[in-house]
Amino acid sequence: MNRLDWNALDNAARRAALARPAQSRAETLRNGVEQIIARVRADGDQALRELSARYDRCTLDVIEVSSQEIDEAEARLAPTLKAAIDEAAARIEAFHRVAAPQPVALDTARGVRVERVLRAINRVGLYVPAGSAPLPSTALMLGVPARIAGCTEVVLCSPARADGRCDEAVLYAARITGVHKVFKLGGAQAIAAMAYGTESVPKCDKLFGPGNAWVTEAKLQVSADPDGAAIDMPAGPSEVLVIADDKANATFVAADLLSQAEHGPDSQVILLSPSPTLLDAVEAEVERQCALLPRADIARQALSQSRLIAVSSLAQAVEVSNRYAPEHLIVQAEQPRDLLDAVTSAGSVFLGAWTPESVGDYCSGSNHVLPTYGYARSYSGVSVASFQKQITVQELSPAGLREIGPCTATLAAAEQLEAHRRAVTLRLAALETAA
Amino acid sequence: MNRLDWNALDNAARRAALARPAQSRAETLRNGVEQIIARVRADGDQALRELSARYDRCTLDVIEVSSQEIDEAEARLAPTLKAAIDEAAARIEAFHRVAAPQPVALDTARGVRVERVLRAINRVGLYVPAGSAPLPSTALMLGVPARIAGCTEVVLCSPARADGRCDEAVLYAARITGVHKVFKLGGAQAIAAMAYGTESVPKCDKLFGPGNAWVTEAKLQVSADPDGAAIDMPAGPSEVLVIADDKANATFVAADLLSQAEHGPDSQVILLSPSPTLLDAVEAEVERQCALLPRADIARQALSQSRLIAVSSLAQAVEVSNRYAPEHLIVQAEQPRDLLDAVTSAGSVFLGAWTPESVGDYCSGSNHVLPTYGYARSYSGVSVASFQKQITVQELSPAGLREIGPCTATLAAAEQLEAHRRAVTLRLAALETAA
Repeated sequence: MNRLDWNALDNAARRAALARPAQSRAETLRNGVEQIIARVRADGDQALRELSARYDRCTLDVIEVSSQEIDEAEARLAPTLKAAIDEAAARIEAFHRVAAPQPVALDTARGVRVERVLRAINRVGLYVPAGSAPLPSTALMLGVPARIAGCTEVVLCSPARADGRCDEAVLYAARITGVHKVFKLGGAQAIAAMAYGTESVPKCDKLFGPGNAWVTEAKLQVSADPDGAAIDMPAGPSEVLVIADDKANATFVAADLLSQAEHGPDSQVILLSPSPTLLDAVEAEVERQCALLPRADIARQALSQSRLIAVSSLAQAVEVSNRYAPEHLIVQAEQPRDLLDAVTSAGSVFLGAWTPESVGDYCSGSNHVLPTYGYARSYSGVSVASFQKQITVQELSPAGLREIGPCTATLAAAEQLEAHRRAVTLRLAALETAA
Repeated sequence: MNRLDWNALDNAARRAALARPAQSRAETLRNGVEQIIARVRADGDQALRELSARYDRCTLDVIEVSSQEIDEAEARLAPTLKAAIDEAAARIEAFHRVAAPQPVALDTARGVRVERVLRAINRVGLYVPAGSAPLPSTALMLGVPARIAGCTEVVLCSPARADGRCDEAVLYAARITGVHKVFKLGGAQAIAAMAYGTESVPKCDKLFGPGNAWVTEAKLQVSADPDGAAIDMPAGPSEVLVIADDKANATFVAADLLSQAEHGPDSQVILLSPSPTLLDAVEAEVERQCALLPRADIARQALSQSRLIAVSSLAQAVEVSNRYAPEHLIVQAEQPRDLLDAVTSAGSVFLGAWTPESVGDYCSGSNHVLPTYGYARSYSGVSVASFQKQITVQELSPAGLREIGPCTATLAAAEQLEAHRRAVTLRLAALETAA
């Protein structure tokens, strides 16, 4: 890990210190994804079979997972894991329910009722990666809010293993969250199938979930096409920023940094501390613990582009963190909550020594599909609202139109929109005549 | 207007009946916008001056509007118009305040506090078009929610007239909504300036507002670049769908259709009714009223791609409307509210004879920046939430970690993320030791 002193850096060096590993939208990636999308649009299921054979080395006769397969998966699933999935789903559901948007109604003037009503996005597509390992937790994080929102058709794609089966835990998570259809599809072809539809896969209105560079590029491409599908957010590699004071437990801090670093070689972890002693201790602990990990190689690659940064104070640490806008922000300080008000940009925040980031990944109840790569400056994590539309409604009585009609007519005239003005004035005239 | 009978159409004809006028992202448009963005990134203010001279025929010494210019604009503004802007702003503010997201906190287990806090997006850029006429109402619709959200820097761009000034009403609306900086910029160059920043224009995190094809293409391009800016939503031409029964007032319906048609030649208006008599009457009324409009030519072009469609019932009308997903949906039926529950996709809904769409454009209190072009299937209109991020926060006590730690560890193990598991288990071990 690189060791830096924030206050010894000039502006360019500060920018470099907080730079993410470059994500290329290289021409080859763009073109490759364009071709996959074009093939799926042209040849539907046949293209999906061929692409799965090529990329996932898996032969698919039937692309959809049958309910018998899900029964079998459930039967094979270890009871402890099943119970953990149930437990996580319950807490995710509890938090997402209270955080769901509520309808609103207000009379903004006498006789002018204005409302906001909520409607589920009809057809949504969930992508659950299975790169180095399948992610049943992601199925929960997407399936639970989709069910609370009331989406009428929830489709889930996850790549099959070489034996042609999907992961048991993913299938069980899909079942208990009420997913309607599961397909053995991964990569850009899964995104294309859900965005445009094929014989087997329903066309979806919005797509959700993390994925590799191909999946991300495919999501960007289909979201720029009005005939494609909306997406939850742009995605980049996972990342964590830890703020720790001199009272922080170096073993815990190192464990949190490593739990991010093991995600992938392009993950990024940053530690900010005003305490040189703590920075030293964490550096040594990271080395020690890293050696114990099965994914030590991946973690080491991630650590090579990661930073330990000395800052002058916890307040400065928060400023630097806001500038970075991390997906995950861990605050291991004696009074962690004192810093929360100053946090302006982050995906999810973890306060105190007993709140490892992994509880948020699985089962505290918050969502783990979060904005990465600086997108936390302008995007929020997935929530029930991500699966809904908010529709405004207005209803005026004749008295209401008399109340706000003149204001409307004045503004329409100023904007030289005569038909807008007349839609009001001819109604007001009708009211005069009737009176 | 084309007259169709929904129940006489096969599936292809139904699709054609609800097709929007094609919006090309033609190669020339894409390349032209790419070049403008590249120029602004390379040459900053100098590029903005040259592009404004070329496209807006306007010579800019200083790109930012001074507060003296805003004072002068306010002094020149007609008192009735000023009062109408104040009145509209007050109702927009009232509704947006009650519809703003609220913080949430819940203990999802003993000792596990999970929260959602709200933070304003720091720097936002608002685009206010001034194509055929400047749109002070758009300045209100963007400025009011930005202020309620508490954005720290609100930037507004609107093209100057040939005399080098911005519209008085736009400037006044910007002032009363607390916009921090106003720039005399239009088109793709305005979007590029706000997305990347120049010497004068601050770099913004998210851009809002409608615009022509160049503005829309520029927004798409900067939103696909992690170094660019997020955007409110993709945009297309404005549109209305009216559902009317045999009791509807044909004069009112025709006026509403025309108030959409006058927006631009590519606007689309659709009328659905189970009553042939009403369809006849509206067709005649549209002809009669259109002749009276200053923008009759524009309206006629829009009407040429618009449709009067006979349906079998009001329920079928709602089904067809949901399939179209209109930006504006007007329901002129005897019991309009009875249809509301069945409406699943629309930007904003107007119920009953006394609720012309233009009240929503200006001053009922709802927002007029709405999803068009079918995007209402998955997007919502602009609201306070559009200017905020929702950040989740979790804080566990030692008891909380004992409560949910085992579930976390089981799921982490299932996903082969050992460091995630260890971040929990080594804390649990420390608690054991301490106990």
